[in-house]
Amino acid sequence: MVVSLRLPSLSSLFSPSISRRYPSVLRRRHHLRPPPSSASFSAQSSAPATDVVDSRKSNQKVQEGGVTPRSQDFNAWYLDVIANAELADYGPVRGTMVIRPYGYAIWEAIQDYLNVKFKETGHSNMYFPQLIPYSFIEKEASHVEGFSPELALVTIGGGKELEEKLVVRPTSETIVNHMFTQWIHSYRDLPLMVNQWANVTRWEMRTKPFVRTLEFLWQEGHTAHATPEEAEKEAIQMIDVYTKFAYEEAAIPVIAGRKSKAETFAGAVRTYTIEAMMGDRKALQAGTSHNLGQNFSRAFGTLFTDESGQRQHVWQTSWAVSTRFVGGIIMTHGDDTGLMLPPKIAPIQVVIVPIWKKEDDKAGVLNVASSVKDALHTAGIKVKLDDTDQRTPGWKFNFWEMKGVPLRIEIGPRDVSSQSVVVCRRDVPGKQGKVFGISMEPSILEAYIKDKLDEIQSSLLGQATSFRDSNIVDVSSYDELKVAISQGKWARGPWSASDKDELKVKEETGATIRCFPFDQPHGIKTCLMTGNPAEEVAIFAKSY
Amino acid sequence: MVVSLRLPSLSSLFSPSISRRYPSVLRRRHHLRPPPSSASFSAQSSAPATDVVDSRKSNQKVQEGGVTPRSQDFNAWYLDVIANAELADYGPVRGTMVIRPYGYAIWEAIQDYLNVKFKETGHSNMYFPQLIPYSFIEKEASHVEGFSPELALVTIGGGKELEEKLVVRPTSETIVNHMFTQWIHSYRDLPLMVNQWANVTRWEMRTKPFVRTLEFLWQEGHTAHATPEEAEKEAIQMIDVYTKFAYEEAAIPVIAGRKSKAETFAGAVRTYTIEAMMGDRKALQAGTSHNLGQNFSRAFGTLFTDESGQRQHVWQTSWAVSTRFVGGIIMTHGDDTGLMLPPKIAPIQVVIVPIWKKEDDKAGVLNVASSVKDALHTAGIKVKLDDTDQRTPGWKFNFWEMKGVPLRIEIGPRDVSSQSVVVCRRDVPGKQGKVFGISMEPSILEAYIKDKLDEIQSSLLGQATSFRDSNIVDVSSYDELKVAISQGKWARGPWSASDKDELKVKEETGATIRCFPFDQPHGIKTCLMTGNPAEEVAIFAKSY
Repeated sequence: MVVSLRLPSLSSLFSPSISRRYPSVLRRRHHLRPPPSSASFSAQSSAPATDVVDSRKSNQKVQEGGVTPRSQDFNAWYLDVIANAELADYGPVRGTMVIRPYGYAIWEAIQDYLNVKFKETGHSNMYFPQLIPYSFIEKEASHVEGFSPELALVTIGGGKELEEKLVVRPTSETIVNHMFTQWIHSYRDLPLMVNQWANVTRWEMRTKPFVRTLEFLWQEGHTAHATPEEAEKEAIQMIDVYTKFAYEEAAIPVIAGRKSKAETFAGAVRTYTIEAMMGDRKALQAGTSHNLGQNFSRAFGTLFTDESGQRQHVWQTSWAVSTRFVGGIIMTHGDDTGLMLPPKIAPIQVVIVPIWKKEDDKAGVLNVASSVKDALHTAGIKVKLDDTDQRTPGWKFNFWEMKGVPLRIEIGPRDVSSQSVVVCRRDVPGKQGKVFGISMEPSILEAYIKDKLDEIQSSLLGQATSFRDSNIVDVSSYDELKVAISQGKWARGPWSASDKDELKVKEETGATIRCFPFDQPHGIKTCLMTGNPAEEVAIFAKSY
Repeated sequence: MVVSLRLPSLSSLFSPSISRRYPSVLRRRHHLRPPPSSASFSAQSSAPATDVVDSRKSNQKVQEGGVTPRSQDFNAWYLDVIANAELADYGPVRGTMVIRPYGYAIWEAIQDYLNVKFKETGHSNMYFPQLIPYSFIEKEASHVEGFSPELALVTIGGGKELEEKLVVRPTSETIVNHMFTQWIHSYRDLPLMVNQWANVTRWEMRTKPFVRTLEFLWQEGHTAHATPEEAEKEAIQMIDVYTKFAYEEAAIPVIAGRKSKAETFAGAVRTYTIEAMMGDRKALQAGTSHNLGQNFSRAFGTLFTDESGQRQHVWQTSWAVSTRFVGGIIMTHGDDTGLMLPPKIAPIQVVIVPIWKKEDDKAGVLNVASSVKDALHTAGIKVKLDDTDQRTPGWKFNFWEMKGVPLRIEIGPRDVSSQSVVVCRRDVPGKQGKVFGISMEPSILEAYIKDKLDEIQSSLLGQATSFRDSNIVDVSSYDELKVAISQGKWARGPWSASDKDELKVKEETGATIRCFPFDQPHGIKTCLMTGNPAEEVAIFAKSY
């Protein structure tokens, strides 16, 4: 027999000690649990000696189904879910990720929504090359400082050493400005508002699937305007688009606000962000929008002639959301048994599990299940019929629950007789989430299903909002902040202290300013650190 | 005044001698024509010394509008159209291309159609990393031979020299197989059918916008099957999808067939292709579908356990269409005045040009034009109202003609009174294409416009088909073949000669076998080169 190349599965790599820590709980539903391995997605724990992960380790497939309970080990749960729900796998090069169809479908749902919003707000898609002359990166001082440690460089092309090294884009502000400089001449060419869907490469040392990978997918919007007011308005508009998406589609109650100076994008004047609280209460920066001012237009000489005939540098913005958002969705929702996807971004909204014991019943059940599927599909619902006979209905229940499908429809011989189905909600465990005797008459069932999907969507947002709010503590002193952070919570308090003080908080507590939220309390405020007057509250938290 | 960085325009770079060759014709509509330049998109004519194009040349913007007549210089016309219609620009690195919104919208139309078809035929989208260990490329012998001269290599990451060089993907068969090997275990995991939309990098020496660039966008489908028959069926199915797209959407009457051994993809058993005849009668390979057999599964040990419990290597396919197709659309349709886009893939299907002389008429005309626009937009027609008062109606007519918009609606004060509009077809020049007095009553106008768009779509396909058929010559001897090729035509004739003979034809005539078409004439055939019996006719042509 030929020896095939096999890689250890994701879950074993990301959480090598799980099988020792939770043997009984886990193995109930695990047929196989691979041995701990030293290879790893992240260089954090045990970096492989080479950049290319050694694939010559024999291994066996992890049985789909069981995951480490979320309440016991959040990180192990996250990695198990990604592996078992087949959201992603890791690439052969350290820190790279293969996005598998189920994970990619979530990204497609994000794209479908945002792409329409970008166009509605006046942006056109286009594409800039990913290879950027090294000299471009050096033109904007803080930009080079921020990005140069993370660059992947092409030095050989077509078998020859290149005269100038080329950067594999970590972001495109430099090349965008190089082109804008050629396209913009007068105020009539403004505003120039474009977006691209692309891959970017950053040589990260600590990686985690979706959250931080060597290469990731994103959209990057780039705009140029005639006035600073317009640029500011655009930067705000786009963070608003992201906020609306987070709330309404991903059911993530992000907090939108302004980054502190220390956390502002390399090259930006101001960075706006949406910060999401994950299930372990760490913050995830889920999207950013930058007011770039004239930093890049000065560096690249991007000028226009204004209405009075004067030459001026353009005012710019850039904004991005990436595949990291998929990680945010996974880590916001879910429970001990696995993923829980908001209906609006779920690749499968409804799974139908047919149930039969006697072979005589099979054809009748499958027949009815198939027409129910067709009816829901026609109604625009993303539905899957799991009609394989390799697995028991119980196994299927667990599997699709783990995959986070919002609704399950069960159809057995008795349901066929009564022309009704059983509908189970993913987000309400046990019998409470199960409703019997829903008519399978298409118009009734469709309406019922759509209604339930809406209910689940709201319910997930509601739960995440309660969770967030019960984990944000208002603090008025540094001591209170330290207590809150040590309890794993977010601390919100008035802040007007220095960058140095901000660094001190980071060093002493591990927390950073996530943002100065747009939503500010009224009244007089006193800086929690210095006791001086403060205009705003800031939110501090540990983050991904 | 700050000196801005300006690049010479595309048209000057691609066709430096145009302004000298066709001064009078051209300048009629050109306000500015930049001086000839030595920098070039392609290294073919005058390669710059460095890989990074020197951008510090002062220049001015080319006025939109006039292009070199297609009948006079096809290549100059192509480059002028790309520059003036703002389809693309070149990137700072030699041979790279920036796809501008109007060009990108054509690519989006291609994506929208194919993406649906891929899903309908059972494929899921996903994403593989673009960085591939160099050792992977070496595993399949003919693959490395085909691709190694064209590779871009990352040798530095995060400031450090890498232990193993990484290839920026030129295509993904190797990394796909590395992953398939981990995912495929039994026949139940098959077929595995995926697709990705991605960028790829090939260090081409001779580049041409859209047709051949250092980096391009494409989709690449990858499938694995349990039997060779299934793989063959899949490869054929996908070339059929491409063929249907070419005919029905792009109005390009491609010829589908099998590549000769010499022209088969590096690593494939069989390559199927769609070959399109461009306006200069050169062939463009517009899409390919490969039956990979077990070449990659043997190299990467991609095995499955079949129904009888035996371990077997999987049978695979891969298939791709790229941004090159946009070049094919440009070069198939069009005339002396510019682009001519098939309605189904046109970013703008209808442009409305309001006409007024007296300031008194302006508001009324614009008002009506705006409601006509809204009505057509609501009907799902891609419509643009060009209401700027910077330009005259005549200028706008020329501009939108050059941009290839299928239909123009003119609305003046008299039309407002009579509640009717003037409709002009892009593909029928002059008065013949102009119809007066079409009612602006929404339902009537919509029906008329949709009908005309359908007519244009068919007409473009019809014209391209006549052109193609009148330029394919049936030949029965090598002498006849040489005559046909020297006249710039395609030669079709029986072929059963050797690879060496095929090479001889290439060396002596510049033509290659484009394909053995699926559509074969009946009857006994004699090889045009050797006089031996031949089973098939082949098509020979010069190509891009």
